[in-house]
Amino acid sequence: MGIIRLKNRAGVASVAAVCGKKEYDGNFGDRYDEYSDDDTFKQKTFERAEEEMQRRCFGHALRKGGFAPSDIDAVFAGDLMNQCTASSYGLQDYGIPYIGLFGACSTMAEAVMLAALTVDGGYFKRAAAAVSSHNCTAERQFRTPVEYGGQRTPTAQWTVTGAGCAVIDAGPSVMYIKEVLPGRIVDRGVTDAANMGAAMAPAAADTFKRYFDESGLKPRDFDVILSGDLGCEGRTITAELCEYDGIFLGENYHDCGELLYKPEQDVHSGGSGCGCSALGLAVYLYERFRKKEIKNALFVGTGALMSPMSVAQGHSIPGVAHLVRFVSEV
Amino acid sequence: MGIIRLKNRAGVASVAAVCGKKEYDGNFGDRYDEYSDDDTFKQKTFERAEEEMQRRCFGHALRKGGFAPSDIDAVFAGDLMNQCTASSYGLQDYGIPYIGLFGACSTMAEAVMLAALTVDGGYFKRAAAAVSSHNCTAERQFRTPVEYGGQRTPTAQWTVTGAGCAVIDAGPSVMYIKEVLPGRIVDRGVTDAANMGAAMAPAAADTFKRYFDESGLKPRDFDVILSGDLGCEGRTITAELCEYDGIFLGENYHDCGELLYKPEQDVHSGGSGCGCSALGLAVYLYERFRKKEIKNALFVGTGALMSPMSVAQGHSIPGVAHLVRFVSEV
Repeated sequence: MGIIRLKNRAGVASVAAVCGKKEYDGNFGDRYDEYSDDDTFKQKTFERAEEEMQRRCFGHALRKGGFAPSDIDAVFAGDLMNQCTASSYGLQDYGIPYIGLFGACSTMAEAVMLAALTVDGGYFKRAAAAVSSHNCTAERQFRTPVEYGGQRTPTAQWTVTGAGCAVIDAGPSVMYIKEVLPGRIVDRGVTDAANMGAAMAPAAADTFKRYFDESGLKPRDFDVILSGDLGCEGRTITAELCEYDGIFLGENYHDCGELLYKPEQDVHSGGSGCGCSALGLAVYLYERFRKKEIKNALFVGTGALMSPMSVAQGHSIPGVAHLVRFVSEV
Repeated sequence: MGIIRLKNRAGVASVAAVCGKKEYDGNFGDRYDEYSDDDTFKQKTFERAEEEMQRRCFGHALRKGGFAPSDIDAVFAGDLMNQCTASSYGLQDYGIPYIGLFGACSTMAEAVMLAALTVDGGYFKRAAAAVSSHNCTAERQFRTPVEYGGQRTPTAQWTVTGAGCAVIDAGPSVMYIKEVLPGRIVDRGVTDAANMGAAMAPAAADTFKRYFDESGLKPRDFDVILSGDLGCEGRTITAELCEYDGIFLGENYHDCGELLYKPEQDVHSGGSGCGCSALGLAVYLYERFRKKEIKNALFVGTGALMSPMSVAQGHSIPGVAHLVRFVSEV
């Protein structure tokens, strides 16, 4: 039994999203709080650009919620860079107690889950979830520098340049966290670092199966089911794996990696990275709750927990998927 | 106001510690559950050795507590390797919901803090904190491969080869978590990656000052004050920084980095790494509570949140320090 039902009230008090040029040119350009037209945010390195992006995003979340840094008791944060430096350097100036996470691309769901539990339990009055990824920092770390110009395979995904932040507290909100389900690590032997969707799909399917089995609910009970960054390859595999277990995710099932970009933007299998699900949460899911288009949704952050070293040493790629259920009323 | 007081009961149900040869030859050789006499744990790479060490350590913690993997609702885990792969690969076979952390060398305190809060809040019946570091994986990642044989500076610390695990639940225990205080990121401009103690000391002093100011308690109210891996350099600086604020940590203040090794073992400024504070918690602090030698202790995990990339790009090194207060009765 793994589903955790919240006892009191924890909702999203404010969200913010900052992105790069390609994301701004995608499907939700008008919904971002800020973007950089050359992805540098006027910094000398891409690593500093990602830090700056996260710093600015957090500032927007504070501003939009009417909060001072001292109003936030703790920030749960992480990113893809080695030792998660986009978060530690990006957020240090705010002086807020800092709880570092590494969940790879699932970090936004993990952070929201932990922020919600600690707020619901009364340990923090208000906590934030903050994550980022940057195409140029991730590609040169995990695969090849973008300047190398390597040919990308059809299953490759495009690491999103984006930072997202959600502030969680017990006040009134358009979306509340009702349940969370932390994911298990699942490794089905995928070794292709250019096919993250296939590596993460078994973990996503495992979390979906655990959730629906234990809750007794069906996918059709939800207005939206949103996975983090499986892309079209991983989303298709996840839907098939769920079907083997009699779970039909249906037409309300979407993936952030498919939503963010336009078809003509050539992102192959879709977006990926910590920023992918974070942007999806901020500019798609939150917006639909705010407009009262949806009342009940599942958000499943997906992460691939390998490193370049583990792949080079012949390890297969383990995945994890954390689930958060959002509702419009509690 | 940042100190969080637990509401119910969360205690350490079992601990385990596995280490390398140098740690076994140190001050607490007879207290480790297992060690590898060549630090390889019979694996082909040092990375796999660290994974195996963490896997074995978790197994010992289960065995000593009389638990099956299904008795543990979640594991909070992390390590120093890029993308924290020692934890994700090392623990995946247990099939336990996995919540990945990155707190650098502060990860054990961070994990115990989160496990304690989520157990205390009733969200998990039982949760584990598991971390590791390995001298050969850390040195080749952060500085130079050990085979290079570089001259070490007097302020350099010795990354501990060790894995520690603590299982937290609401049952009877020899040590309970009474309070926690998540740390803030503090960066005072240290850029020397061979002086982690100086980089982390301002964060440790910040956490001590916040704790003593808010609680009204004095260092002499505690039987032991134990920091994670400041070493003799960092411990001295921390004590001095605290003295400037009128806080005299006194003779009950120790650092895990100084406790683990014998003087003749030539570890320069002392031990460091996630494993350092984890071993200190398991073989020193827990043992002293178990023998009823102490009743009230502060455990402050310290971490340096830089990466090799951030150091190479000229960034200074930020630190963080999370505090956990243990007591013998609640």
